[in-house]
Amino acid sequence: MTKEFFKVLDVGQVLALAPSFARLPAEDIPLTEATGRVLALDVVADADLPGFARSTVDGYAVQAASTFGAAEASPAFFQVVGSIAMGESPAFSIAAGQAARIATGGMLPPGADSVVMLEHADALDEATIEVLRSVAPGQHVITAGEDFEKSAVIALGGRRLRPQDTGVLAAFGRTRVRVTRRPVVGIISTGDEVVSAEAAPGPGQIRDVNSYTLAGLVAESGAVPLAFGIVKDNFAALHAACARVLDRCDMLLVSGGSSVGVRDFTVEVIAAFPGSEILVHGIAISPGKPTILARVLGKPFWGLPGHVVSAMVVFTRIVRPFLRHIAGVFDPLSQDTRIPARLNRNVASAQGRTDFVRVRLVRGEDGIWAEPILGKSGLLNTVIKADGVIEIDKNVEGLDKGAEVEVMLF
Amino acid sequence: MTKEFFKVLDVGQVLALAPSFARLPAEDIPLTEATGRVLALDVVADADLPGFARSTVDGYAVQAASTFGAAEASPAFFQVVGSIAMGESPAFSIAAGQAARIATGGMLPPGADSVVMLEHADALDEATIEVLRSVAPGQHVITAGEDFEKSAVIALGGRRLRPQDTGVLAAFGRTRVRVTRRPVVGIISTGDEVVSAEAAPGPGQIRDVNSYTLAGLVAESGAVPLAFGIVKDNFAALHAACARVLDRCDMLLVSGGSSVGVRDFTVEVIAAFPGSEILVHGIAISPGKPTILARVLGKPFWGLPGHVVSAMVVFTRIVRPFLRHIAGVFDPLSQDTRIPARLNRNVASAQGRTDFVRVRLVRGEDGIWAEPILGKSGLLNTVIKADGVIEIDKNVEGLDKGAEVEVMLF
Repeated sequence: MTKEFFKVLDVGQVLALAPSFARLPAEDIPLTEATGRVLALDVVADADLPGFARSTVDGYAVQAASTFGAAEASPAFFQVVGSIAMGESPAFSIAAGQAARIATGGMLPPGADSVVMLEHADALDEATIEVLRSVAPGQHVITAGEDFEKSAVIALGGRRLRPQDTGVLAAFGRTRVRVTRRPVVGIISTGDEVVSAEAAPGPGQIRDVNSYTLAGLVAESGAVPLAFGIVKDNFAALHAACARVLDRCDMLLVSGGSSVGVRDFTVEVIAAFPGSEILVHGIAISPGKPTILARVLGKPFWGLPGHVVSAMVVFTRIVRPFLRHIAGVFDPLSQDTRIPARLNRNVASAQGRTDFVRVRLVRGEDGIWAEPILGKSGLLNTVIKADGVIEIDKNVEGLDKGAEVEVMLF
Repeated sequence: MTKEFFKVLDVGQVLALAPSFARLPAEDIPLTEATGRVLALDVVADADLPGFARSTVDGYAVQAASTFGAAEASPAFFQVVGSIAMGESPAFSIAAGQAARIATGGMLPPGADSVVMLEHADALDEATIEVLRSVAPGQHVITAGEDFEKSAVIALGGRRLRPQDTGVLAAFGRTRVRVTRRPVVGIISTGDEVVSAEAAPGPGQIRDVNSYTLAGLVAESGAVPLAFGIVKDNFAALHAACARVLDRCDMLLVSGGSSVGVRDFTVEVIAAFPGSEILVHGIAISPGKPTILARVLGKPFWGLPGHVVSAMVVFTRIVRPFLRHIAGVFDPLSQDTRIPARLNRNVASAQGRTDFVRVRLVRGEDGIWAEPILGKSGLLNTVIKADGVIEIDKNVEGLDKGAEVEVMLF
């Protein structure tokens, strides 16, 4: 058997292997498809934004100095010399004591340095207003380059583009963007007892849950799942399936194989690929210990536990950072946003391994509580009831009721 | 003008209008496309899961009573009567003092009620093992129906399907699921100063940022954005565009129109549709006050502020719950997950309106801090730097440094 080669690592040791895999190449895509994608390179402003001083209110463009001392009781009078059409460059300029009507977003005319809000001015006739409040230079104006100066970095390479990031790229006319190609993740379920979701399981058989759950997790991570169905527990079938899938994908998830025999097939299949290397053979976590990571044809090849609950924990905490790394994410090992909460009962855990406990979030008068979901790790209903998991460090022996924890959502 | 009809509501009053819009109809889709979709109806288990008692470990199926008293120093001896093949129904049964080899997931033979782990048994010869530790009835076994009993609700109508939810549907063979149709959201940008992202803006012109940002927000909400480009600030053009878009979508977002004139056009256009009804004309929030909500042809019609920052805040806090409601979400008004944090400086706010302050999350030794991002509300760079916003209640006059806040991510 292969027990002598077992390489049981802790969470940190496994994650440290992610950078040893190559990132995927970049591609150009239309900006309309860019939200959620990972920008491949920093994007730099090729001009000031805005390119001209704009009003932030509806009102009158003026020279601030002409308003000094203006008040309800002692208004300042202005000659209205024009009106600024939206989207046009004013053909006139503003001198002391002059004003021009301007709408939000309008371009300030030369000479003007501020805008009096409409509600702080009264029109006396077509050509005259009285201003009831003074403005400071620059007030109610966004100056040229105030949002972004030319040459500023407007979007960082390695970051996932949010809606506002695509907005700023649009502001600079970047209608095509260079992003890292989306990883394609092959998914194989193994197990002689596993039948497809379409099938009616016979005695001793169960339907394939992992392919669907893993495909959903892959898709929600911004990658493309490619589910190849169920492969029987034998070397030839598994080797042939893995070869076919590796040819079309950037990462492979083989799930099932929680029995010793199947784990061995997986190791044998990996070994049969030239130049393959087993990096991890067991992780000091619960659930999820019997996880395998290998480099096969340069790609991450995961053997995930057969229990869907364990597979979910391993995917969320371990596999996803690798997926982010090959997808070009700048800091793939940084933790996902976790929700701080307090534990509403004691939880036992074993030292020497990292324990993951499923919890439900409960909002109380006094903040957010994490309520452990009890039940065997093989039970799907526990991850249906749970909002996420908490992670108990390998050097900690259980947590007390009231302990501060952070919930990794799933 | 229309000032006499202004209906300025607070956040709660606006959100309370969501249920007055009709939900979208349901459709059947393949389970492989179901993650992220909203289930239209409760799904009930049509059988026990698992359908048979399964082992959760590799080991020996036994009668627990035969192991009582077993210990390292006084092992119990068992006759091995067979081996259970994965995915098959055992053709034999287990009597007292008998054992059968079983792998994780294997079906327990009749008579057996528990499983001894492989590492707690030693094989003496092909037909005999000694068991070194006792097991309790049910130990290392998932009984029939232990995960879900027949007739239990396995997935709740009105809930967004997570990867594990699609997994449980697969376990029950539900390869097609009934979900609410995904809302199609039309997006129109207005403004005579706005040019498309492809264009080179002239003096006084800016590129269309809102279409891209809103399309990204719509897509991330699980709906389908349909961007119709830029419409000039005049009644005829806006009316024609809205009529065309309303015909093809379930909700309309008209952004821009932050100037008084354009707001008036929007109101006139709404009024020109037969049976239309203006529900909201201004919300007591900052930024985002000049927001319009109408019911036009039975659909939510939003006039959003022209500043992209304001439009983002309104979308995230106000529009999204309406989108969820028409998308069939059970509790569309429940808040999104927010990250508890403490404010790292004082923040002023006005009473009588709900203030939204952009913040960056900073992880310190002593927890998570929310750092306010300063800058005019029209500046795009503030939402690039921010991780989200905090909401300051209309009855609160500013928050002190150290105050506990909750960050709505964007």
